[in-house]
Amino acid sequence: MTSSALVQALQQAVGTAHVLTDGDLTAYEQDWRRRARGRALAVVRPADAEQVAAVVRACAQHGGTIVPQGGNTGLAVGSVPDETGTQVVLSLRRMDKVRAIDAANLTLTVEAGAILQNLQAAAADAGFLFPLSLAAEGSCTIGGNLATNAGGTQVVRYGNARELCLGLEVVTPQGDIWHGLTGLRKDNTGYDLRDLFIGSEGTLGIITAATMKLYPQPAAKLTAWAAVPSMEAAVELLGLAHGQLGAGLTGFEVMGQFALSLVDKHYPQLRVPLWRESLWCVLLENSDSESEAHARDRFEALLEGALAAGCVTDAVVAENLTQAKGLWHIRESIPLAQAEEGLNIKHDISLPVSRIPAFVAETDALLAREVPGVRLVDFGHLGDGNLHYNVQAPEGGDAQAFLRDEEDRINALVFDAVARHNGSISAEHGIGSLKAAKLPHYKSAVALQLMRSIKQALDPQGLMNPGRVLI
Amino acid sequence: MTSSALVQALQQAVGTAHVLTDGDLTAYEQDWRRRARGRALAVVRPADAEQVAAVVRACAQHGGTIVPQGGNTGLAVGSVPDETGTQVVLSLRRMDKVRAIDAANLTLTVEAGAILQNLQAAAADAGFLFPLSLAAEGSCTIGGNLATNAGGTQVVRYGNARELCLGLEVVTPQGDIWHGLTGLRKDNTGYDLRDLFIGSEGTLGIITAATMKLYPQPAAKLTAWAAVPSMEAAVELLGLAHGQLGAGLTGFEVMGQFALSLVDKHYPQLRVPLWRESLWCVLLENSDSESEAHARDRFEALLEGALAAGCVTDAVVAENLTQAKGLWHIRESIPLAQAEEGLNIKHDISLPVSRIPAFVAETDALLAREVPGVRLVDFGHLGDGNLHYNVQAPEGGDAQAFLRDEEDRINALVFDAVARHNGSISAEHGIGSLKAAKLPHYKSAVALQLMRSIKQALDPQGLMNPGRVLI
Repeated sequence: MTSSALVQALQQAVGTAHVLTDGDLTAYEQDWRRRARGRALAVVRPADAEQVAAVVRACAQHGGTIVPQGGNTGLAVGSVPDETGTQVVLSLRRMDKVRAIDAANLTLTVEAGAILQNLQAAAADAGFLFPLSLAAEGSCTIGGNLATNAGGTQVVRYGNARELCLGLEVVTPQGDIWHGLTGLRKDNTGYDLRDLFIGSEGTLGIITAATMKLYPQPAAKLTAWAAVPSMEAAVELLGLAHGQLGAGLTGFEVMGQFALSLVDKHYPQLRVPLWRESLWCVLLENSDSESEAHARDRFEALLEGALAAGCVTDAVVAENLTQAKGLWHIRESIPLAQAEEGLNIKHDISLPVSRIPAFVAETDALLAREVPGVRLVDFGHLGDGNLHYNVQAPEGGDAQAFLRDEEDRINALVFDAVARHNGSISAEHGIGSLKAAKLPHYKSAVALQLMRSIKQALDPQGLMNPGRVLI
Repeated sequence: MTSSALVQALQQAVGTAHVLTDGDLTAYEQDWRRRARGRALAVVRPADAEQVAAVVRACAQHGGTIVPQGGNTGLAVGSVPDETGTQVVLSLRRMDKVRAIDAANLTLTVEAGAILQNLQAAAADAGFLFPLSLAAEGSCTIGGNLATNAGGTQVVRYGNARELCLGLEVVTPQGDIWHGLTGLRKDNTGYDLRDLFIGSEGTLGIITAATMKLYPQPAAKLTAWAAVPSMEAAVELLGLAHGQLGAGLTGFEVMGQFALSLVDKHYPQLRVPLWRESLWCVLLENSDSESEAHARDRFEALLEGALAAGCVTDAVVAENLTQAKGLWHIRESIPLAQAEEGLNIKHDISLPVSRIPAFVAETDALLAREVPGVRLVDFGHLGDGNLHYNVQAPEGGDAQAFLRDEEDRINALVFDAVARHNGSISAEHGIGSLKAAKLPHYKSAVALQLMRSIKQALDPQGLMNPGRVLI
């Protein structure tokens, strides 16, 4: 490979000003959690799909591989270059336009580099809801959300990024553009290419634009906080909420006592409610198409029934938007409080909802036995069966040494337990580099073989994000 | 190929009693609309996924190709053998067990050959709703529904078969079994194999079981019938219904005046309401998680607002379940009334909802100009942008001659109009053999090339349902 020839070809493709090779490229070369720092041959910032295609063709011709990148906020090390200095980082960030909003069709067409929060705002300005919502929404891009099939807090009602997408524009490893930006809700004309690219983490092609679903804005959105005596009770409450709120149930988060104690310890001003008297708390959100009064009636009927049934021991309903935001802020502060407490091991697992109580009981006990003193920061999107089952080092010890010595063993204990309960080792964060080596242990050989066949068929040169997902 | 060796191998795989070669095999060899009649080397009826895998391996070894078949109710000629007498029809009908219902996880795991109506009943017996619903539900199978990504009448709320499926068990063209029967709502561990098999019409593998989503039963379900002055008004009413009913809107069907006149003519006992005074009628369904009284209040508020806005000129709300069923029965009788009236050309198209008024106005005028006397039977799932834009021969003429002489030209006129409005030539019926030759005209070359690469990668021998989707 002649890397200078490649850089020249890239400059021709996108213009010299948009090929970065010098200066501080940390923002492109280091992942958000600082778990990996690579070195890029160049960072290219194309302006449109044609330029993306030209970049791909240049790389194919000159033998460079491509790392597509959006907001670079992923948690699985999937969007930074390796250390060879030969990879091209293809940043989609200049492609950030909302191309169209179709109100009657309830769709929004947007370029891949648009920031999620800007999409939410564009939808709201047009009178609609774009429901995808997650902690990184201020800096992640919709292209990255789709490449990783992002989840977040509204999945119980609206699904993952995949379920919110109707059509894609994709640049293939051959440098062709697939114009698949359909706003159709039904289209049975062949294989589901859209869903194949979604969640493929940039290993099969580069998503350059998408047509996403919009929803009517709810008339009211209420938030409640309930103390529940056990995980079994939390699951029972979820069933009651599904039955009584129907599609009004737009959020159902569970938080363990230790996780909330960390928020209380590090952010006492947030005033965490009800956590001292209960092993678990649940945050519920009810979106109502009618009115706030109606939403409140429905919520109170649900919680009264749950109190009577014993699956809730105490509850508060936010009186206003400020209180509601405060409750969500507590939930979202758990990862920050955890970081304040010190280094920890993060998991992003999913299980059938019915298996979660047994999984938590067994795995808590297993870890306590195997790793004395370990502290479990357990919280997540119970409505989707998704737990962030995180592990904090024992109090007072050397957390860095703990991670170095115990991380692999703890991961294996947790992932093996997940496998025994028919769960997944990556619910919403993806595989990236971080879990690529583990995948063969936890995914069936037949599935892996199918995946390899598809990768080989679509990207025979291995141009696209090598080392991610499949290794 | 030695066909007798293949038959022997099939007998070994599934038992002699379940390899049919003699007698009347019409039910397996002829499609539901009687558009094609083939001849099978044998019909095999395996009992489980292992036997399906053994059949696939036998065919691979002896050079037979496989036509998977469920209820054989498809409308695109995708599940009957060709005329060579060399293909093996693999009927999934013996595999019809509900394997598990997981109430806390809201899932049902079922074998591919189970009849859709039996699934609906199994879900209802457990206190849940399985929302997939379509005309053939008494004889179609869930495996066929998934292989063709079936739609139906509840898509506006619950999505197509694809959106209702969480996991699959599939026999690959190599005769391996992919055990992908997950009940997880979040699982980002690699490529989306599930959605690749769904909608691939048996050309990439054989779906042998699936884990499907369940929903809480609504507390009440109400049906209304509204006269609307124009298609623009119908689209406006849809927007109001989305906004005011939210996820309560579970059905939104539009029916043209001529379509309803045929029901009135051939089934006068059904007493079609409001059709004489209006060009279009709309059937709306409102599912409510609270109560019938609440559902009625919400429906009446919607319709009063729509009357005031002028997008509805008159409306009735069914007083009871019998009346509601009567209204749905009218809608479902349109295809039968059409058949009574004589031969006709069926279309199953989809468009962005916002484009439907312009599409209908332009295409009605185009056909009236190009094919004088032609009569349009226009109805469909407006909530999903899906029209069955059917064409009835001119009154009094020779319908058979009309179809023979005009069908291809009319299809081209309609499909070209669909393409101009960014629509799809197959919304919910699939491609099968019927539209395989048309696909290259209406699908992008890049998409087709991606599809061919995937087919070649997964089924290099071309074992699975050759001649369907891709030719």
